[in-house]
Amino acid sequence: MAEAGESSGRVYKHAGDQRWEGLARQEYKSPAHHWQGVSRTEIVAENPRPTLPFHVRYFEIEPGGFSSRERHDHEHVVMIVRGQGTVWLGSASKDICEGDVVHVGPGETHQFLADRGDRLGFYCIVPAERDRPVVEGGGASACEIPPTRAKSP
Amino acid sequence: MAEAGESSGRVYKHAGDQRWEGLARQEYKSPAHHWQGVSRTEIVAENPRPTLPFHVRYFEIEPGGFSSRERHDHEHVVMIVRGQGTVWLGSASKDICEGDVVHVGPGETHQFLADRGDRLGFYCIVPAERDRPVVEGGGASACEIPPTRAKSP
Repeated sequence: MAEAGESSGRVYKHAGDQRWEGLARQEYKSPAHHWQGVSRTEIVAENPRPTLPFHVRYFEIEPGGFSSRERHDHEHVVMIVRGQGTVWLGSASKDICEGDVVHVGPGETHQFLADRGDRLGFYCIVPAERDRPVVEGGGASACEIPPTRAKSP
Repeated sequence: MAEAGESSGRVYKHAGDQRWEGLARQEYKSPAHHWQGVSRTEIVAENPRPTLPFHVRYFEIEPGGFSSRERHDHEHVVMIVRGQGTVWLGSASKDICEGDVVHVGPGETHQFLADRGDRLGFYCIVPAERDRPVVEGGGASACEIPPTRAKSP
């Protein structure tokens, strides 16, 4: 017997190809000077859960694409689940591939690149309350561009 | 040129088989009345990062194993990355498999089971500050058993 409040959680079913039932994937196909070929899916975020202290998003970078080189005070953690590429943490770069977990420290300049002939897909966990990224060279972060600018697949 | 504080983050390299370089996997092989066949790897947790607002752990449940049936006020999110099984959320059960994402709501009784002839591996994200789980029928949660009780693989 179901009790009130028992079904507050939810299973977000994977629909294949790193897409989830009922969730929009925001594609940013147009090249920009500071990021390129990035898509974003907000899986567990503010809506409908304002009480959650962290948000879970999935990003995928096309082969040859890259995220903005940026920094922010909030820490985040990224779990690579598809493909391979490179991450810059401060002044050091590392190869990354499926299974690797990346912790970006507070204020640390970072960038993810799908620069190894493959796409790079990862879950990205951020605090619900967070400061805006500062992009090196200026401009908007692919993490922060509002969904209204997204093109549907 | 490296600047002070630039290398606060870290890449946790995957060493294959859902193990990570330099990280201990805590195995709980012994059956208990409320959980069975669960292993835990703390990937990004308190040490060395007391400032992180959430923790990232990897759990794997052997075929036939299961986590405690428990509840707690804090919400958590689980990303299935290996195998398949079943999750109970309140009074409803759902099949889960690789790629699915599970959000456990506040106070929601939940349990993960590797009951479909396969192991079930998942990242589990929890707030750094969290209440202790209450296990249905009493006992300790596999999420909370201290590492000193762990057997090394």
